[in-house]
Amino acid sequence: MTNQDFYIDRLVIVGVGLIGGSLALALKAAGVVGRVVGVGRGLANLETALSYGVVDEITRDAAEGVKDADLVFLATPVCSLGPVAEQMMAHLKPGAILTDGGSVKQAVIDAIEPHLRADVHFVPGHPIAGTENSGAEAAFASLYQERRCILTPTARTDPAALALVSRMWEIVGSRVEVMEVEKHDRILAAISHLPHMVAYALVNSVGAYDRYDENILQYSAGGFRDFTRIASSDPTMWTDIALTNRQALVEMMAQFETFFAELKEDVARGDDERLYEFFRRSKKSRDEIL
Amino acid sequence: MTNQDFYIDRLVIVGVGLIGGSLALALKAAGVVGRVVGVGRGLANLETALSYGVVDEITRDAAEGVKDADLVFLATPVCSLGPVAEQMMAHLKPGAILTDGGSVKQAVIDAIEPHLRADVHFVPGHPIAGTENSGAEAAFASLYQERRCILTPTARTDPAALALVSRMWEIVGSRVEVMEVEKHDRILAAISHLPHMVAYALVNSVGAYDRYDENILQYSAGGFRDFTRIASSDPTMWTDIALTNRQALVEMMAQFETFFAELKEDVARGDDERLYEFFRRSKKSRDEIL
Repeated sequence: MTNQDFYIDRLVIVGVGLIGGSLALALKAAGVVGRVVGVGRGLANLETALSYGVVDEITRDAAEGVKDADLVFLATPVCSLGPVAEQMMAHLKPGAILTDGGSVKQAVIDAIEPHLRADVHFVPGHPIAGTENSGAEAAFASLYQERRCILTPTARTDPAALALVSRMWEIVGSRVEVMEVEKHDRILAAISHLPHMVAYALVNSVGAYDRYDENILQYSAGGFRDFTRIASSDPTMWTDIALTNRQALVEMMAQFETFFAELKEDVARGDDERLYEFFRRSKKSRDEIL
Repeated sequence: MTNQDFYIDRLVIVGVGLIGGSLALALKAAGVVGRVVGVGRGLANLETALSYGVVDEITRDAAEGVKDADLVFLATPVCSLGPVAEQMMAHLKPGAILTDGGSVKQAVIDAIEPHLRADVHFVPGHPIAGTENSGAEAAFASLYQERRCILTPTARTDPAALALVSRMWEIVGSRVEVMEVEKHDRILAAISHLPHMVAYALVNSVGAYDRYDENILQYSAGGFRDFTRIASSDPTMWTDIALTNRQALVEMMAQFETFFAELKEDVARGDDERLYEFFRRSKKSRDEIL
C-alpha cells in the first residue's frame, strides 16, 4: 500500500514533547504532511522544536494555532487534555479531526466529549511507545516503528475519522488495534500502571530500611537499578495516571497483592515445590514475551 | 600497590560457570595464578571451560581436583555448597584456603563450618556481580571490575586468610567490604532477593489476568519487559536463595507489603498530594543511585 491516498495539509501538535514531536517527525519523514504547527506553554521547548525542524511554526496560543487545522494531535499530560480540548474547540474548522495520545482513555473521553462540537471528529488513541527522555529534543522519527497503537472509538466517533487516524499510525510504522475503552484501561493498568506502582513501592520500602545507619540502596547493583528504572518516572504524570485510571489500577494492585502474599507464605513455610513452581511459571510467561 | 606479593600456585574453581570462570580469567589476566583446575559435574561445560582457556585442567572428581590446592573457590548453587565442601574436606592440604561466592551467607556458613578442618581456612564471600548468562562460555575477565565484593568472616575465620581473599578480589577490580553475616543477608534480601520476588509475583499476577480471552502479556511494551527481566532468572537458583535466606526475605517482603498497601489506599482514595509525594520520594531515591 502506498501513501499516495493519505495527506494531512495542516497538522497541529499540542505538546511538542517526545510523543507529539516524534509523530510530527515520522509523518514528515513519510512525506504525508504539509505544514506542522507546534502549540505549547513553554516557549523554550517550542523554540527547540522549531530549530530541530520538528515543527514548522510555533505558538503558545492554542486558539490561534488550531485555526485551519485538518488534524490536531493532543500530547499533553492526561489531566490537561479536557481543558486543552475545551479551550480550542470553538476555533476548529468544521470537519477537523482531533485525536490524542493519553495513556488512560475513559477519563480522557469523559473530559473531552462534553465539549465536542458535532462537526469535529474525536478519535481517542494511545500509541504504546516511549523512552525515559522527554521534551522536543527527545523526539525521533522512528519511535513508533513496530509498536502498538490502540484506538478506542466511542459511540460518537466518526468511522471515516477513525480510519484516517488508524492509517496515520500505520504510516509511522505502528500496528493499530481498535479496542473497547474499558479493555484498554484494564490492560494498561496491568502491563504499565501496576508495574510503575510496584517499582515506586519497592524503592520506597528498600529506601526506608533503617536497621543500619546507612542508606542500603548504595549496595544496589545493576539488577536493582535496571529493575527500578521506571521508579524514576515523572511523579506528576504518574499521579495523573493513577488518579484517572483509579478503578482498574486498584483492581490490578489487589490482584498483585494476592499473588505476592501467596508467595510470601510459601517462602515463610519454606515450601520448595510451590516456590519452584511459582518461579518456573513466571519465567515461562516472561520468556514467552521476549 | 603491585601484585608482586600475591600469587596463587594452584587455584581450584568448583563450578566453572559465569562466577567461577570469570574469577579464573581475571586472576589469569592479572598474572597472579599458576595452574587453574576446574571441577564440575557436567563434562560438556568443563570441556568448554578448558577449550576457552578458562581453566588449565578439568576433573569431575572433587576429591582428586582439590589435592594440592592453595585456594579453592566454590561457585556452585547455594544449597550445594555444604555437601560439596564436606565431600572435599579430607582431601585438602593443610593451610588450604576455601572461599565461596554464595549470595546467602549464614546458611552457607552453617552448612560448611561443621565440616571444616582446623587446618583449613574458610572465608565466606559474595561478589555482587552477574549477568543474565550462565555457563563457562559466559565467563569474562572484567566481570568483577568496579563491583562490590562482601566478605563475612566468622569467629573461626583466620585473619591472614581473610586478608588474602580480600586482596584477591581487589586484584580483579572489586571494592571489598567486610561485613557481619546477618547484615549481609538482610541487605541482600532488600536489594536483590525482594526485587526478584516482586518481579516473579508481578509477571504471574498479570499473566493470570483472565478477564479477556487472550494473554494480556502480549500487549507489554519495552518498559514491562525491562522491568520484569529478572523474572526470567533460574527457578532452581531462586528457590535455593528464598529457602536459605527465608527470615530476612520474609521480613523485607512484609515491609514491601506495607508500603504497597499504603500506596493502594492512596490510589483508591484518589489522594493526589500523597501520591505525588510517594512518587517524588521514590524518584529522588532512585535518581540518587544512578
